Amino acid sequence: MEIRHAEPADHARVAGVIDDWWGGRRMRDMLPRLFFTHFRDTSFVADDGAGLAGFLCGFLSQTYPDQAYVHFVGVAPERRKSGLASELYERFFEAARSARRTSVHCVTSPGNTGSLAFHRRIGFEIEAEVEGYDGSGESRVLLRRTL
Amino acid sequence: MEIRHAEPADHARVAGVIDDWWGGRRMRDMLPRLFFTHFRDTSFVADDGAGLAGFLCGFLSQTYPDQAYVHFVGVAPERRKSGLASELYERFFEAARSARRTSVHCVTSPGNTGSLAFHRRIGFEIEAEVEGYDGSGESRVLLRRTL
Repeated sequence: MEIRHAEPADHARVAGVIDDWWGGRRMRDMLPRLFFTHFRDTSFVADDGAGLAGFLCGFLSQTYPDQAYVHFVGVAPERRKSGLASELYERFFEAARSARRTSVHCVTSPGNTGSLAFHRRIGFEIEAEVEGYDGSGESRVLLRRTL
Repeated sequence: MEIRHAEPADHARVAGVIDDWWGGRRMRDMLPRLFFTHFRDTSFVADDGAGLAGFLCGFLSQTYPDQAYVHFVGVAPERRKSGLASELYERFFEAARSARRTSVHCVTSPGNTGSLAFHRRIGFEIEAEVEGYDGSGESRVLLRRTL
C-alpha cells in the first residue's frame, strides 16, 4: 500500500468509483477536480496492487488560520476495516500540523453511525448538530479534533 | 447594490436559487457550504433591495502560491447584463492581488459561448481545452487571467 499526495490525474480515477463506493449515491459532483489540483498538499491517495484503495481530500481553512478541514474520505469496499481511513487521516493531521493548524474539522450525517463511531475512535468530538446545514433541510453533525 | 464577503448563512440562500439560475440544472451539490465558511475572504455576495443578486466563490490555490481560482459565479437572471459579474470578479481580483497572487484561473464548458465571451471581455485567455477534464467524458476550457 502506497499513500501519496493527490495529483490532478487522480480525479478521474476517484470520480470513476466514488458513486459505487457510496452505495450508488450520486457523490461525484461534490468532488470537483479542483481538490486534486489546488489542495494537493492536504489531499492523499492510497494505491495497492489492485488499484485505487482510498483517498482523502482536505484543505487548510483560509478564513480560520488555526483550522484544517476534511471534505471527503473514501475507502474501497473491499479495503474497509483495514485501518486505511485512519492512515489517511494521520497523513492529513501531519500536513495540518506542519501548516501550524491546531484543529481539524469535518461534517457527517447524524444517521451515519459508522462514520460517527469511526471519527470518535480517531479523536474527533461532536461540536454541534445543525439543522438544514447544507441547505437541503437535512441536518449535519459538525466534528472537531484537536491537533 | 451591496457587495460583501460571503458568510456561512449565505450558503442556504445561494443553494435555494442556484438550480433555477442555471436553468434547472442540478448545481447545488457542486457548491457545498464549506466555500461560504472557509473561503470567505475570496468569496462574495451581492444583495439589492429584492434579495440575493449574485455571488462568487473562489479561493487561493494551496498547491500554486501564485494562483487564485474561481469555482462559481452566479447572477440572478433579472440582474444579468448589469455588469454585476464583472464587479464580483473585480472584488476577487483585488483579494487575490492582496494575497500576492499573479494569476486567476477558472474552467468553463466549450459550448458555453456566453461564458467564454464574458471571460475574454474581462481579460481571461484560453489556456487549453481538455477532454474528460471532470471525469465525466465532457471537455472543459481552462481560462487564465494575469493580475
